[in-house]
Amino acid sequence: MALEEPSDPIPIIGGTGALGYGLAVRWATAGIGVVIGSRDVARAAQAATRVAEQVPGAAVEGLDNSEAVTRGPIVFLTVPFRAQSETLNNLRGALQSGQTLVDCTVPLAAAVSGKATRSLGVWQGSAAQQAAEMVPEGVTVIAALHSVGAPKLADLSQPIDEDVLVCGDRKADKAPVAALIDRIEGLRAINAGPLEMARIAEQITPLLISVNARYKAHAGLKLTDLETEGHWD
Amino acid sequence: MALEEPSDPIPIIGGTGALGYGLAVRWATAGIGVVIGSRDVARAAQAATRVAEQVPGAAVEGLDNSEAVTRGPIVFLTVPFRAQSETLNNLRGALQSGQTLVDCTVPLAAAVSGKATRSLGVWQGSAAQQAAEMVPEGVTVIAALHSVGAPKLADLSQPIDEDVLVCGDRKADKAPVAALIDRIEGLRAINAGPLEMARIAEQITPLLISVNARYKAHAGLKLTDLETEGHWD
Repeated sequence: MALEEPSDPIPIIGGTGALGYGLAVRWATAGIGVVIGSRDVARAAQAATRVAEQVPGAAVEGLDNSEAVTRGPIVFLTVPFRAQSETLNNLRGALQSGQTLVDCTVPLAAAVSGKATRSLGVWQGSAAQQAAEMVPEGVTVIAALHSVGAPKLADLSQPIDEDVLVCGDRKADKAPVAALIDRIEGLRAINAGPLEMARIAEQITPLLISVNARYKAHAGLKLTDLETEGHWD
Repeated sequence: MALEEPSDPIPIIGGTGALGYGLAVRWATAGIGVVIGSRDVARAAQAATRVAEQVPGAAVEGLDNSEAVTRGPIVFLTVPFRAQSETLNNLRGALQSGQTLVDCTVPLAAAVSGKATRSLGVWQGSAAQQAAEMVPEGVTVIAALHSVGAPKLADLSQPIDEDVLVCGDRKADKAPVAALIDRIEGLRAINAGPLEMARIAEQITPLLISVNARYKAHAGLKLTDLETEGHWD
């Protein structure tokens, strides 16, 4: 493991949304501190209170996004695609060189009132590559956690058994992110290659939405025949 | 099951290639007749002989592509992307209205000596949608079987446990294709939505290639939490 115990808290930007909230609940359950960020500090505080109620003993606080990002080295961005650019613009002064931003954004056409089974073409190739263009110098962007269903994360009675595709240009940068993902029971972080592979990883979400609509299911992704033990060491 | 027993033989265009050959071996094992098509009838006959040696009692023959497509209602196209257009042009007089063409093509950049982890942008959206533009009037195109590893199919000692994304505009057209896929032990056909979803389904292959390169593995795709029983009935 690249992380020492006790680990740094995890800032979750857009942590009042479904995915961010679900991650907060799971990490809190794993004994990791979380900082829920929102544009609206009152909503952030409210979400933090909900997490604390759901997870006894949780180390959780709710802050303004800009304040939240200062609380830990690895920041998760879980806003909807339509808010991604604006959020990153607002964080330009707050994100510091040496930090890692984990972009979980999926460019669903739903962002412009299109279908959730269709994607928007992002000129850079993917939402994560767009994020990489926008972060301050020295901030590393990793893409991950696009395909994990938010409702399942937030409901601790639901067992999870899913793989998480982690994309980024350097394995050393991906490893600590993978370690955080692996701390959530039932999730397995998979090294999917460089950041440009986010073009594909982000598309798993509309694919699952299409399958789920047909089967009235909450399907997750899993790769078979893959021995992952020791990969990140 | 939409198919009666004994079922029609399955023409496999490009059946001397790795994926086509692997499918031939598996369907022959399941007791279904296969017709291996090739531009080169001698190579088709050779591949048919190999299948017959590998699968005692196999009903298999090797024919010219144009002859092969006339032997069954559901034709599988397993040529590499760089040969897809030419092959479909050559089959224009042979494919008949009422037939189904299952396109298994993946537009890997390897077709133009690029990386196998990168894709070519196809103006129509996907290789399958390109195929749909090229087939004669009345021929239905379904996309499937992009992500199943050819070496695993061809080696009967290897157990398979993978899902196959099936894309097509009408469920009734996908069902008989799904039935053929389900006849291969360890494969499960998943209704992934309309043909346009082939844009995503085709991308699973370069994603798996990227993962496999990092883990020295032969990973396959599986969707979890998905109850599929009875979906195609």
